[in-house]
Amino acid sequence: MATAGKVITCKAAVAYEPNKPLVIEDVQVAPPQAGEVRINILFTALCHTDAYTWSGKDPEGLFPCILGHEAAGIVESVGEGVTEVQPGDHVIPCYQAECKECKFCKSGKTNLCGKVRMATGAGIMMNDRKSRFSINGKPIYHFMGTSTFSQYTVVHDVSVAKVDPQAPLDKVCLLGCGVPTGLGAVWNTAKVEPGAIVAIFGLGTVGLAVAEGAKSAGASRVIGVDIDSKKFDIAKNFGVTEFVNPKDYDKPIQQVLVDLTDGGVDYSFECIGNVSVMRAALECCHKGWGTSVIIGVAASGQEISTRPFQLVTGRVWKGTAFGGFKSRSQVPWLVDKYMKKEIKIDEYITHNLTLGEINKAFDLMHEGGCLRCVLKMHE
Amino acid sequence: MATAGKVITCKAAVAYEPNKPLVIEDVQVAPPQAGEVRINILFTALCHTDAYTWSGKDPEGLFPCILGHEAAGIVESVGEGVTEVQPGDHVIPCYQAECKECKFCKSGKTNLCGKVRMATGAGIMMNDRKSRFSINGKPIYHFMGTSTFSQYTVVHDVSVAKVDPQAPLDKVCLLGCGVPTGLGAVWNTAKVEPGAIVAIFGLGTVGLAVAEGAKSAGASRVIGVDIDSKKFDIAKNFGVTEFVNPKDYDKPIQQVLVDLTDGGVDYSFECIGNVSVMRAALECCHKGWGTSVIIGVAASGQEISTRPFQLVTGRVWKGTAFGGFKSRSQVPWLVDKYMKKEIKIDEYITHNLTLGEINKAFDLMHEGGCLRCVLKMHE
Repeated sequence: MATAGKVITCKAAVAYEPNKPLVIEDVQVAPPQAGEVRINILFTALCHTDAYTWSGKDPEGLFPCILGHEAAGIVESVGEGVTEVQPGDHVIPCYQAECKECKFCKSGKTNLCGKVRMATGAGIMMNDRKSRFSINGKPIYHFMGTSTFSQYTVVHDVSVAKVDPQAPLDKVCLLGCGVPTGLGAVWNTAKVEPGAIVAIFGLGTVGLAVAEGAKSAGASRVIGVDIDSKKFDIAKNFGVTEFVNPKDYDKPIQQVLVDLTDGGVDYSFECIGNVSVMRAALECCHKGWGTSVIIGVAASGQEISTRPFQLVTGRVWKGTAFGGFKSRSQVPWLVDKYMKKEIKIDEYITHNLTLGEINKAFDLMHEGGCLRCVLKMHE
Repeated sequence: MATAGKVITCKAAVAYEPNKPLVIEDVQVAPPQAGEVRINILFTALCHTDAYTWSGKDPEGLFPCILGHEAAGIVESVGEGVTEVQPGDHVIPCYQAECKECKFCKSGKTNLCGKVRMATGAGIMMNDRKSRFSINGKPIYHFMGTSTFSQYTVVHDVSVAKVDPQAPLDKVCLLGCGVPTGLGAVWNTAKVEPGAIVAIFGLGTVGLAVAEGAKSAGASRVIGVDIDSKKFDIAKNFGVTEFVNPKDYDKPIQQVLVDLTDGGVDYSFECIGNVSVMRAALECCHKGWGTSVIIGVAASGQEISTRPFQLVTGRVWKGTAFGGFKSRSQVPWLVDKYMKKEIKIDEYITHNLTLGEINKAFDLMHEGGCLRCVLKMHE
């Protein structure tokens, strides 16, 4: 712990402006203040939300910043008053905090802890409303309260899940976002029951995790919908039982699904972030009970629409963030499920690169064959 | 039962064309065929759905027709195979059928029985796909499978609820639509729990029934929202604890409610049929768990919209028809609750007129002081 209490200079990928390649820089990472944890990030994956903010389409995006929110590492040091983790603990930073004390955490109805949201949304730390990252004295914004594209990062203590030290960090880093989001959408938000018919729009990592969750919940049919037919072979391994490519039909896709399922699906999941697809996902649901869950993040300013009759006749429109999982409580449980081989992780990792290759990793993300690319942070 | 098996000629209010005054005519009502029940309607109330179809805005509206769907009467005769009611039974016709055999009825998830929907939507009876109403041989369409603006009507047996013969039919006729819709939206669709904060948009009969349901469910605050402040005094009697008139504010009403409730309401109910209000009702809900229920019927072609972020951050958008009540099973239970003074009915009845005064009754409906006007069918 020779570094405790001192500024650490390390490598980080800095996003200076929207859509410009990330730059690997020497960044100064200040020591954690009260209620903060400094983490040595060992592995980080890339997620579409990183790309969304990087693209400049996120109206809350702040530059320059250090992106990244799906990672794993080891606690380097902790600030005053931090009791739940200590240096050496293996941890997963969680963009969705869990303080266990706020109105949200106490409600028993949601995982959307509100304690540090104002700070994380503003790219700063709550304690002094400043960033812990700087380059030659110039502050660099945090991102989602995690900023895992840095070899060291500082997060709020309510945003750190302590996990089994035996778990391979190059794998369980995926439990920071995409995989729990899909599994939880099925288990926590939709509560899919045995025998249900499920449709999944978009067969990326989140969509495949939805399929895995639906299969484990006992769904009788899991219909994958994607405009890239190449994804279908892989999707079978995650539990998708039927494939529909909207390009193969002249009819609206909601009508195709209603026809295929004698009236509609019991549950649908939108895993793309396209508002037209969100509407289709709702409207392919069965009258009387079909429930559609929005998972994808739509571009700023876009709106969803439908006829109110769709809801009056019994369909339910919901959404989910981090799959409804309470991060600090349940990410360790997901790690344990992985260790017991009850959930997949390895199968989502299609590429492994290093921090220095991060721009290449973003390019890969936009290609069809990539699910998750995991970056090794220290060479 | 001297009339059994014979055509009955009686008075009915016929809607010949949209927006033209109803005409009291001598109508021939054919005997019930297999699976049908002919009912002597003693009392009917008027509901906004009658006015909606009458206005010509309902694209499924058929003319000439006999409107009316909130009524009570006595079975005059039954067709072949009808076993659950017999002549002399006191009944409430139910626009939402319950066959107990179809996919919907068996699902355990919805009250939207599908058995006779194709026929009732087309203004005819399922057996021979014809109307039982005619004037000098010219058929007159049925409406909602009930057509209670006639002294005698014919309905499908799956659309008849047999009720306690002690119950006053001039009161329990209201259990055919508006009151159950409001109560059930709270009890069945939203499942409001003790301590919850509720907002109600529109303080007509349905909105007041929502208030009554919310009060009985133990809601801590029941906020009534209406642009007619005169409604507020009456609303208190039904459980509304606070009033908000959107005209008193410059801010959007959803923001007013969020500010009044430290983040939003737990449940909201739209009882108007205005798509802008439906949006406000969703957006005034609390992040993480707020649930909005659409009850009102919007004009044809209109759509609801919101940012998907509203749902991704935990709000739920639902709707309800007949409050989720299974009609034949639960209307008798509601009648019993009324007889035990557990739910109000009398308080919703502001006017009593006769069938011959039906056009005056429609005029009254559009005035602020009218909740329900009950028509006596036989003088």
